[in-house]
Amino acid sequence: MYKANIHVTLRPSILDPQGKAVHHALGSLGYASVDKVRMGKYVELWIDETDRDQAEEVARAACEKLLANPVMEDFTIALEVVEAEAA
Amino acid sequence: MYKANIHVTLRPSILDPQGKAVHHALGSLGYASVDKVRMGKYVELWIDETDRDQAEEVARAACEKLLANPVMEDFTIALEVVEAEAA
Repeated sequence: MYKANIHVTLRPSILDPQGKAVHHALGSLGYASVDKVRMGKYVELWIDETDRDQAEEVARAACEKLLANPVMEDFTIALEVVEAEAA
Repeated sequence: MYKANIHVTLRPSILDPQGKAVHHALGSLGYASVDKVRMGKYVELWIDETDRDQAEEVARAACEKLLANPVMEDFTIALEVVEAEAA
């Protein structure tokens, strides 16, 4: 069993209004030392495969077909081996 | 300058409808080996502090006051040193 830790982030050239809003709110709270904020998604997938390549393939397909917008977003996948757990 | 990589995740006992929806969609796409999906937030903060403790304090306050719901969510903070960049 593998766990895929996936980060989906906006490409650097794409404006991030949610990050700007958080940045502004932190400024209002008095945290002037925050220079920039970018918001992304963090997705955890538990994949019931014994083969690492197979698990990576599933995670990659999930990102490309469902989780990330290929025009605006980048993604990274980090796989780790985990114990099977009761769902 | 520090960069804080923040993960905000729903506590394990909290139902994650967004994760369930993604899980269901992956099933429809034919990826039956995906056992569980949990969705979280990934926030990158660039903090203009020279002192590591100070930077961690700012990141922690941002999580507690703004980014995470303390009843339903957990957060982790990982700090790294980065070069200052033009905002």
